[in-house]
Amino acid sequence: MSSGITETETVLTLENINPHVRAARYAVRGELAVKSEQYRAKLAKGEGKDLPFDTVIAANIGNPQQLDQKPITFFRQVASLLENPLLLEHEDVLTGSLGYQKDVIQRAQKLLKEVNSVGAYSQSQGAPGFRESVAKYIERRDGYPSSFENVYLSNGASSGVNTLLHVICAKPETGIMVPIPQYPLYTATLSVLDARCVPYYLDEAANWGTSLEAIQESYDKAKSEGTDVKAICIINPGNPTGASLPAEDIKSVLKFAAKNKLVVIADEVYQTNVFIGEFVSFKKALRDLQKEAPGQYDHIELASLHSTSKGMVGECGHRGGYFELVGFHPEVAAEIYKFISIQLCPPVIGQCIVEMMVNPPKEGEPSYELYKKEYDAIFKGLKERAYALYEAFKKMEGVEVGEPQGSMYLFPTITLPKKALEQAKKEGRAADEFYCFRMLDATGVCTVAGTGFGQKEGSFHFRTTFLAPGTDWTQRLVKFHEDFMQEFR
Amino acid sequence: MSSGITETETVLTLENINPHVRAARYAVRGELAVKSEQYRAKLAKGEGKDLPFDTVIAANIGNPQQLDQKPITFFRQVASLLENPLLLEHEDVLTGSLGYQKDVIQRAQKLLKEVNSVGAYSQSQGAPGFRESVAKYIERRDGYPSSFENVYLSNGASSGVNTLLHVICAKPETGIMVPIPQYPLYTATLSVLDARCVPYYLDEAANWGTSLEAIQESYDKAKSEGTDVKAICIINPGNPTGASLPAEDIKSVLKFAAKNKLVVIADEVYQTNVFIGEFVSFKKALRDLQKEAPGQYDHIELASLHSTSKGMVGECGHRGGYFELVGFHPEVAAEIYKFISIQLCPPVIGQCIVEMMVNPPKEGEPSYELYKKEYDAIFKGLKERAYALYEAFKKMEGVEVGEPQGSMYLFPTITLPKKALEQAKKEGRAADEFYCFRMLDATGVCTVAGTGFGQKEGSFHFRTTFLAPGTDWTQRLVKFHEDFMQEFR
Repeated sequence: MSSGITETETVLTLENINPHVRAARYAVRGELAVKSEQYRAKLAKGEGKDLPFDTVIAANIGNPQQLDQKPITFFRQVASLLENPLLLEHEDVLTGSLGYQKDVIQRAQKLLKEVNSVGAYSQSQGAPGFRESVAKYIERRDGYPSSFENVYLSNGASSGVNTLLHVICAKPETGIMVPIPQYPLYTATLSVLDARCVPYYLDEAANWGTSLEAIQESYDKAKSEGTDVKAICIINPGNPTGASLPAEDIKSVLKFAAKNKLVVIADEVYQTNVFIGEFVSFKKALRDLQKEAPGQYDHIELASLHSTSKGMVGECGHRGGYFELVGFHPEVAAEIYKFISIQLCPPVIGQCIVEMMVNPPKEGEPSYELYKKEYDAIFKGLKERAYALYEAFKKMEGVEVGEPQGSMYLFPTITLPKKALEQAKKEGRAADEFYCFRMLDATGVCTVAGTGFGQKEGSFHFRTTFLAPGTDWTQRLVKFHEDFMQEFR
Repeated sequence: MSSGITETETVLTLENINPHVRAARYAVRGELAVKSEQYRAKLAKGEGKDLPFDTVIAANIGNPQQLDQKPITFFRQVASLLENPLLLEHEDVLTGSLGYQKDVIQRAQKLLKEVNSVGAYSQSQGAPGFRESVAKYIERRDGYPSSFENVYLSNGASSGVNTLLHVICAKPETGIMVPIPQYPLYTATLSVLDARCVPYYLDEAANWGTSLEAIQESYDKAKSEGTDVKAICIINPGNPTGASLPAEDIKSVLKFAAKNKLVVIADEVYQTNVFIGEFVSFKKALRDLQKEAPGQYDHIELASLHSTSKGMVGECGHRGGYFELVGFHPEVAAEIYKFISIQLCPPVIGQCIVEMMVNPPKEGEPSYELYKKEYDAIFKGLKERAYALYEAFKKMEGVEVGEPQGSMYLFPTITLPKKALEQAKKEGRAADEFYCFRMLDATGVCTVAGTGFGQKEGSFHFRTTFLAPGTDWTQRLVKFHEDFMQEFR
């Protein structure tokens, strides 16, 4: 920004721009993240000898490949052929001397046939053949039919959420039920849309599960305030909580939605990041329910989202994702199609990564063994780090956290000394934000304060990913916490 | 869509979803395009022996690589190494036996160093090093300084327009001046935002240039209606018109904006698609103006957009783009940053294509010769086709079109016989839409009717790209038009 501009001179000012954009909050890339980037830049320049750390750990965002995680070879080999199809005519490639197995070549040919070029726009909804692969994946996962016509590829799952909320939010009184704590994409988008967030608290005492009582209470309150509640969002496995919901909880939510005529938005981007129990999709639970009680739940409208950014894929930068619509009126689906058309199409290489995520090498195919090995190693690494971090947190005074269940995060509660609360107040910060800034300044570890996700009044948390390699940084956290508690005792 | 769903059964209906989404119109991917896809699918299945054509020509959208255009080798070679960095360790790659020159390898290494992995999220605004390259490109192009801090990479130029309009449109009375005819991204986005489109007509008689008189008139009318006019959009070179504005016209617009305190949004995605004269950027014209009249135009706020989808790059599917802000208040820029953060970051491979577009191989570098040859051939091919189409239109009765100047489109006027107008009315269609449907049914050529872009009451047009190879399809158009005129004479 060129300096010297004062507000009176510009047409646009904080006071006259879109107040709903201004009201939006998105802490995952907020002030803490910006400060951590400044530290990182300083260290990269060889400066920062005065800093008490020599590396910055971005534990604020689930961005595996910015840290340790290597991409899965099959995906990237195919992608390289899609970018440079001339390689497909080269003998070294075809004979495998560059590491390209036959199934890599075949997949690249198949995907190219579908899109002609990854540099061409596809259909707005995504290439039909890729959507077919998604539908088949959903069928295998759930044991129920799925049609490519109901699958919409998206720009990460985030653009899918943005699309759905844009179409549903009709007026300022429209209410969307959102879990608290939540990934702030939901509240930020509702702010921008000038619609109402109807928050329902997750039950920390029950491993951050959904509480039907809390949902009902929140719904009743919203209705009494004149809110036209239209949808309920669930993030499963949870972000930031890491909770993995059992089938019974999912069915309860679906029954509640059916009774109260709510659209269900199921954010299932962490569906393969599950350490305890088994992932159950909302789609499967819905079909099960429909089978158990014929006729009773036929008309639930469900949108389920998935992404290439999480799981063992971790291809955040490729911005791949999809959502499946179940039970939506065709005319409403047509409006969704029109809305996404305005932005033309999701990135085509991202669409290809979606295709490969849902249709990876199969047992017996040449690339299978390496794929399986890489996939399993990433899963194991994530689990090990989750537990290492969990053990570290258990040792910290006033820090409490449940056993890791899923997703990429831990979300511990912190009980802060009174003096720390006072100091935070003095500095004009929420107490957990204050704590996280202190942590960043002392350790170089960037996390996100619980306030960024929402939490019960008077409780404090922070979210950390467990993606960073090594155990050094967890030791930094333990040491920082001791010093912090000492300072404010 | 599963059939049998009736409106009374679903929560969401056409009547209760977001009316602003419903009101949006985006004809480029509308009913005509959907019908052409159905024809294409039919032909692909080996059906469609009954159709009077054997190929579908998508002349409705500037999508070069879906048609004849090959990607530029340098871009794609680098991209393949970014996707599969293991190739960088392979001797066949390093020795050039796979066609990879030294500068390809160096560029891939440089870009990878900047982002770590193309599968990682970058900064929301785009990787800083890539933004540096953009700033240097702008400096070379205009001869005036540019800073990477003011450059925002985007998801194609479309998401940039979406971002800017989201931030500027504060209330239903906010007005944005939009040229008519226009690329419907503008009117569609303003519909979604429930803001007012303040249309100003381009001057068809003056090769679709801007008319200050028309702009003033439209502005005055809007003000008299209580519209809070905040910005003026210009598409240069024009879409759908193909017009390329002279420096004087651009300065007139800037002066008008300064006088009336309007933000200027310059959509310059066709900046390299210029056949007549030379492209002058709004940024350059602004800096020239500021030099000519010191102090008078210091505080204009200008946002200029560019894209990897057009030009000789044509990498639509990669969704690369950027915008540069000039004169924006830092607090407003911070809100723009926050807004784009909610969707995390533009696709990283698309960001890399932006970097290469603005920083292509230089003379003397190993890839230069091939790059230059490919680039020039694409330019020449586009120009030749534009003129071939222009010549064909000149032969058609009642069709008028100016000499091709730029962009990827021709936008002829059509004078239709009275009987055709009556028949269109009977079928409930605008006359040019009726004409375009007839054209599609008879020739397989998909265009967009003038109504999709806006036009003066009572005038009719259609937009066609000149991307499709060969001359056969232009002959199909000539024949169709003759038959059409015959039928409705």
